[in-house]
Amino acid sequence: MSWKISSESLQEKQLLNEESLFFTGNGYLGVRGNFEEGLPDTYSSIRGTYINAFHDIVPIEYGEKLYGFPETQQKLLNVIDAQTITILLGDEKFSMFEGDVLSYNRSLYLDKGYSERNVHWRSPKGKEIKIKFLRLVPFTHKELFIQKLIVEPVNYNDEITIVSTVNGDVSNFTDKDDPRISSGHAKRLRVNEVQQRDISFVEVETLESKLKAACGATYKVSQDYKREDHIKSGMIQSFFSGRLTEKVILEKKSVFVDTLRHGDDLSEKVEGIHSLLSEAGFEEALRQQEEYLQQFWNDTDIEIQGDTSLQEGIRFNLYHLLQSAGRDQVSNIAAKGLSGEGYEGHYFWDTEIYMLPVFLMSNPEIAKKLLIYRYSILDGARNHAKIMGHSKGALYPWRTISGTECSSYFPSGSAQYHISADIAYSFIQYFMVTGDMEFLKEYGAEVLFETARIWIEAGHFKDGQFRIDAVTGPDEYTCIVNNNYYTNAMAKHNLRWAVKAYNLLQTMEPERLAELSTRLVLELQETAVWEQAAKQMYLPYDETLMINPQDDSFLNKDVWDLPSTPEDKFPLLLHYHPLTLYRYQVCKQADTVLAHFLLEEEQATETMKNSYDYYEKITTHDSSLSSCVFSIMAAKHGYGEKAYDYFIETARLDLDNTHGNTKDGLHMANMGGTWMAIIFGFAGLRIKEEGLSLEPILPAQWEGYSFPLHYRGRKLRVTKSKTQAKIELLTGEPFNIKVSGESYHLTQNDAIVK
Amino acid sequence: MSWKISSESLQEKQLLNEESLFFTGNGYLGVRGNFEEGLPDTYSSIRGTYINAFHDIVPIEYGEKLYGFPETQQKLLNVIDAQTITILLGDEKFSMFEGDVLSYNRSLYLDKGYSERNVHWRSPKGKEIKIKFLRLVPFTHKELFIQKLIVEPVNYNDEITIVSTVNGDVSNFTDKDDPRISSGHAKRLRVNEVQQRDISFVEVETLESKLKAACGATYKVSQDYKREDHIKSGMIQSFFSGRLTEKVILEKKSVFVDTLRHGDDLSEKVEGIHSLLSEAGFEEALRQQEEYLQQFWNDTDIEIQGDTSLQEGIRFNLYHLLQSAGRDQVSNIAAKGLSGEGYEGHYFWDTEIYMLPVFLMSNPEIAKKLLIYRYSILDGARNHAKIMGHSKGALYPWRTISGTECSSYFPSGSAQYHISADIAYSFIQYFMVTGDMEFLKEYGAEVLFETARIWIEAGHFKDGQFRIDAVTGPDEYTCIVNNNYYTNAMAKHNLRWAVKAYNLLQTMEPERLAELSTRLVLELQETAVWEQAAKQMYLPYDETLMINPQDDSFLNKDVWDLPSTPEDKFPLLLHYHPLTLYRYQVCKQADTVLAHFLLEEEQATETMKNSYDYYEKITTHDSSLSSCVFSIMAAKHGYGEKAYDYFIETARLDLDNTHGNTKDGLHMANMGGTWMAIIFGFAGLRIKEEGLSLEPILPAQWEGYSFPLHYRGRKLRVTKSKTQAKIELLTGEPFNIKVSGESYHLTQNDAIVK
Repeated sequence: MSWKISSESLQEKQLLNEESLFFTGNGYLGVRGNFEEGLPDTYSSIRGTYINAFHDIVPIEYGEKLYGFPETQQKLLNVIDAQTITILLGDEKFSMFEGDVLSYNRSLYLDKGYSERNVHWRSPKGKEIKIKFLRLVPFTHKELFIQKLIVEPVNYNDEITIVSTVNGDVSNFTDKDDPRISSGHAKRLRVNEVQQRDISFVEVETLESKLKAACGATYKVSQDYKREDHIKSGMIQSFFSGRLTEKVILEKKSVFVDTLRHGDDLSEKVEGIHSLLSEAGFEEALRQQEEYLQQFWNDTDIEIQGDTSLQEGIRFNLYHLLQSAGRDQVSNIAAKGLSGEGYEGHYFWDTEIYMLPVFLMSNPEIAKKLLIYRYSILDGARNHAKIMGHSKGALYPWRTISGTECSSYFPSGSAQYHISADIAYSFIQYFMVTGDMEFLKEYGAEVLFETARIWIEAGHFKDGQFRIDAVTGPDEYTCIVNNNYYTNAMAKHNLRWAVKAYNLLQTMEPERLAELSTRLVLELQETAVWEQAAKQMYLPYDETLMINPQDDSFLNKDVWDLPSTPEDKFPLLLHYHPLTLYRYQVCKQADTVLAHFLLEEEQATETMKNSYDYYEKITTHDSSLSSCVFSIMAAKHGYGEKAYDYFIETARLDLDNTHGNTKDGLHMANMGGTWMAIIFGFAGLRIKEEGLSLEPILPAQWEGYSFPLHYRGRKLRVTKSKTQAKIELLTGEPFNIKVSGESYHLTQNDAIVK
Repeated sequence: MSWKISSESLQEKQLLNEESLFFTGNGYLGVRGNFEEGLPDTYSSIRGTYINAFHDIVPIEYGEKLYGFPETQQKLLNVIDAQTITILLGDEKFSMFEGDVLSYNRSLYLDKGYSERNVHWRSPKGKEIKIKFLRLVPFTHKELFIQKLIVEPVNYNDEITIVSTVNGDVSNFTDKDDPRISSGHAKRLRVNEVQQRDISFVEVETLESKLKAACGATYKVSQDYKREDHIKSGMIQSFFSGRLTEKVILEKKSVFVDTLRHGDDLSEKVEGIHSLLSEAGFEEALRQQEEYLQQFWNDTDIEIQGDTSLQEGIRFNLYHLLQSAGRDQVSNIAAKGLSGEGYEGHYFWDTEIYMLPVFLMSNPEIAKKLLIYRYSILDGARNHAKIMGHSKGALYPWRTISGTECSSYFPSGSAQYHISADIAYSFIQYFMVTGDMEFLKEYGAEVLFETARIWIEAGHFKDGQFRIDAVTGPDEYTCIVNNNYYTNAMAKHNLRWAVKAYNLLQTMEPERLAELSTRLVLELQETAVWEQAAKQMYLPYDETLMINPQDDSFLNKDVWDLPSTPEDKFPLLLHYHPLTLYRYQVCKQADTVLAHFLLEEEQATETMKNSYDYYEKITTHDSSLSSCVFSIMAAKHGYGEKAYDYFIETARLDLDNTHGNTKDGLHMANMGGTWMAIIFGFAGLRIKEEGLSLEPILPAQWEGYSFPLHYRGRKLRVTKSKTQAKIELLTGEPFNIKVSGESYHLTQNDAIVK
């Protein structure tokens, strides 16, 4: 059964991880899988509820602040806690860590979209009950978090009190020793209002950004229990008490709203949403959730024959991507989605290069929303370009929520200029997959023009080459280099497509082009420079090794002795000074190899294979963005075993906590990477201007796999078994597609079978 | 008259600068030239008294803290204020900014070693007095700060009250917008004790380092005035009042002590020092001060014929160097000396490369003390090496007081590995100038061995070359590069001399070598690697330009368009993001050109000249460490005019506030640079293993110059006039010296005249 993930663990460390693994969300709201009643005080826990993009602005401190270092950053806030429900049996409080847990399990249902916890518990004094907690964050009602609690008596029929809380007095988690987690500014919310009428209403406001969020909860109890509401310091506690003569059911509907999306009167908004929901309860929400998910899985699911554990991993990853993807144009997918606070809820290039492809090929509407978010922060990127010394163009910030740079360590932050090319790349991919000219006109062209401009100012012509100095590529163990292969190749693509978009608009949308040209002060001769720079772009190549060097100086450095590095020294970034890492040939992640995947037409297959062989030996995969790329390229180069091994690391990274920090949130990019490793790796999908191509292979360990694809209004299915590959056109017009090097005309009647 | 500097300015900005320019100090204590009575509240002022190396430990904040980033730094503290003396004439308080200043001037006497302020003042109500403030910080009693106030009636003979303060309730200056100044942690002292007996005693303690400092003041008044002492919040105010029938004189002796030097019982220590001083007053202190300075100038003074303004600049610089040089082995010379709080009182490579030569050739005992300070923090440097990923050796911190790294921006901090070679260089210079084998044995050898080890680990052999990657050279506009010419050349020198020292010890001090070898786990074969690395050290050379490139990639970058850069964009570091600067060929300061000066035997003269020509065009001299080096090398390459122009910038940088930040303290390295520009530049002195050489030239603007030199127990005098150069041996044994390419045997009887 691969449609749920389950656990029976009560180990402290695992519980902490499961707070991330069992989170429930819908792209707007994310609730960590904390126990309703809490954990013993001595246990570590990150209790969290997040609204995508809901942030405060916090100062960044520097020992030495140089020009242009950002003074503030955004920080995703843990908002109002509505998870908390405790149970009192007379004078005894339910806890999984007192008395006896006679049975326990928890599950997250990926097909039905809810989570469940079942406990059979005997109190220290011998009172025995069965408890079921259910929780659901509907995809179709983004503001809603709905909980259902069922308490069933076993040997106890006396007084029970259920205490449910809506609490605005919350903080973020901090850890000053891990650079991937915030080290301060835990308390950034103050409570504006606590009001108990029909709705238990709590409104909070951030200290600096002045954003407000509110939560209003209503209850339905199956028994005629007495209710009392207590207001105290930022929270409302509602007490439901009576005798436990039979099963009692409590339903709690918490509605979250915020001023980024819901206007200023949050109280009115909460009331309005509650009255719309009216009597609809958990069962109705569940019905709609299942319906939504049926469509989602229909468009997205990858079936693996022959490996249940992997099947679980893949679905788990896709599900959590869906739970985390912001689709309201003011939000995106944070590095940890809505599952935790790692990287402070910031959006990175992870979205464009690792996650967007999933949605692009399965739910292009979500992909579009993610791209419109990038368009919406274009002014922030323009301003960032100015700060970084450019007279025009847009340089996207390395990490951001609202559009300003949040990276305070620029060598592996703002210096990663490639993010602008990555975003351009994803706009190009979107255009190639959807053919959506309207989108190119409205959003894409402007992004392509403004990002292209950056390369002209960051680079320069010298000896007939266009060269780009002082940037950092994806590999953060080598910073501030000249002619990073990845950056130069991606910039070339960006420049070429900026010219293409210009020409397309000139032909098809001359009025829009005229408007853009005026607004951006863009003249035709500027595009000639773009074309020239693209044509003369310097892509380093080493004659001796017959590989693409990562940058101009990379191959001159000493090679890090990975075989002799003790295991407890990984990830290296937590055990070595960055300068030590910069001194050696050692890669945190795929860099040149990633460029070879994204832009394979730039190099001969032999060069890419040599490069793969070379970089594999010096890559630690300390970044979760690495293994999936190596899996894809291993598949391409005929290293089937390796492709599979890297894929395994990818697919269950969080489920097995292989990076040790799942507690801080799930590795969303890696989750997209799982999908990529199958679709681009094993199935060999490539998206080009001239169309799609596939080169399906099957890992020896599997019986087969199958997945749907969306392409220009069509829906396809790819099925690979031990004996054959089958490509079907399920809906849409016939079209041409390349499979294993041969071109086919695919129609609904005639599957391609190879 | 070139033995004093004077001013009559009451402009706010100039007054702020003069707080630095008129500071009085003695290497232990430094008192800024604040007005005793203070300034109006609306005026900017940095009121400061500093004890060299007296610091607190403050946390360093990071937005993203990576492995090995220092968690704390040291910060020189503004200690107890004993400057403050106010004067009341009835109900009117003396202020230079109320009533009428009928005449005013202030002077700092460089030959006598005290400062003086004379004011003829008429109060708003018409009371007229003359006031003289004198202050002196004796070179021979390091703990003492002595003030003398003379008030003379003109038309007023009524009530006068003189209020003198000893105040422990003080703070440091902060400015969050200038990276060269501390941005926080202003208040780091708490007052331990305030006690009024014979002595007005205030003791303070730092919050974190737990160092204590104390000040005890005593008074002598010429008239039989009433005295009252008031204690309030951390301070003692002493009121002296009577009638101003005739001239009244107040002498205040403030004794400063601290637990870094004076043991724990500071109160007892202050009493002891006061009783030693007993009745000796200002006049006696002045007599001793003059005596001391006579000797100092005798050993150090450079006489310039034909330019009074420059003569003033040179003496001013030498005097302030003397005032700032720590000579107690726990202190050194801070970047701003004891004149201000810029760079937080940290010691940089400035000492070794720019200041030590002055003392080495004039007062070698002070040079020795400065070097012993470096020896004393060797353990800190060893620990820093570990943090930076090295298994052994000593890597000196870029900026420090007590030995741990205080730089929080490592690309232009810890990455400046050259500091270790710079320190090694100065130990070698010391040995060459003094021939002091005992010092080499006790201190020098260990420093040379431990610094040499760093290069072996930071560099590697490749293709028959020894290469050093990922370091930053002196030029902070280009960071983290491979094979920085300066670093490699200096490392080579360090390695060569480590081998030399090993061999010397083996021959002359085998027991000490055995002890060191055991303690440092040093074996003979390690020195073979040092020798090999020195021999094969890669020193980049560009065949086309026939220059030494600053580093491997420097010449591939685009050239910064300096001619088109608006004047208000300098210094560039305050107007451009570091990454923008790193992208271009643009230098903050001499880098390769400095290497050519320090190690001229490494390159052909032609290469050095070509390099000079090349780098001159792209150097902004935004660092005050630059012009003097360009002056020296211009002199060498026959660019007399340029040598003079650069020298001018050097000589009066602070007096004319050409860098705009003299308020934060004097540019000590530049002050040493003045001396260097004359001695190494115009006089062409070089110190080599085989002896001294000189190549005297005379700037066209001058009539002549003359200066003394100390060399291996001898004292020489070099005199250059329009017609000749004369080298005299004043004391000591005959020896060989090269003058303008010819070798001479110099004896006391026979001057060399050319």
